[in-house]
Amino acid sequence: MNKIEHIGIAVKNLEQSNELFSKLFGEPSYKIESVESEGVKTSFFKVGTNKIELLEATKEDSPIAKFIERKGEGIHHIAFDVDDIEAEIKRLKDEGFIVLNETPKKGADNKLVSFLHPKSTNGVLIELCQEIKG
Amino acid sequence: MNKIEHIGIAVKNLEQSNELFSKLFGEPSYKIESVESEGVKTSFFKVGTNKIELLEATKEDSPIAKFIERKGEGIHHIAFDVDDIEAEIKRLKDEGFIVLNETPKKGADNKLVSFLHPKSTNGVLIELCQEIKG
Repeated sequence: MNKIEHIGIAVKNLEQSNELFSKLFGEPSYKIESVESEGVKTSFFKVGTNKIELLEATKEDSPIAKFIERKGEGIHHIAFDVDDIEAEIKRLKDEGFIVLNETPKKGADNKLVSFLHPKSTNGVLIELCQEIKG
Repeated sequence: MNKIEHIGIAVKNLEQSNELFSKLFGEPSYKIESVESEGVKTSFFKVGTNKIELLEATKEDSPIAKFIERKGEGIHHIAFDVDDIEAEIKRLKDEGFIVLNETPKKGADNKLVSFLHPKSTNGVLIELCQEIKG
């Protein structure tokens, strides 16, 4: 794993949170993108070589809507940048981690992504992400 | 803010979680350190230029013990590296954020640290940290 690619934060109102995090970081979001398949609208901020991703649910059964219902707004996941997502999935499965989607899927920000179940990682939802080249 | 300095993760059993995260990252913790004033024992992992800090409570009234009681194990805070913590505290106060300790205190890993109240930051406990030089 190369670095923390981003931290995902579940928010109720993306517009309001965009303003809030713009004040926090002293600069605005550089990209807003919807991921239909996940039922989310995302907004990205740069903090040095890392990113913060705000996530707002766009439908009631979105994982983000369910997360906020259960736990309230707050940190939703940590994403780690990897060079070879398939090799990492294999390595982590062999180590006993529960991989939620063994076939990486297309996520926001031009990435292939896969998630580890929080129950195998001390309650932390972990995303692996690999940039789609070309 | 220069980058994500570290992500703090609240755990019940530091020894077991050290093993787990060693498997996750493919390398062991590089430092274990107690911070008496906060009632925590911490363990640090490097992930590229970022760090992961595991936190175990060492007394019952430690903020980490209370956090786990309320929310279970999981992500506790995000720490951002800053060059001048006092200037950042002033800037963020002026922007309307609630600063929990306006006088920075000595944290783990040779840092001066200050926290923002999650109620002013979408439920996210944010730490500012500045390396102590010399």
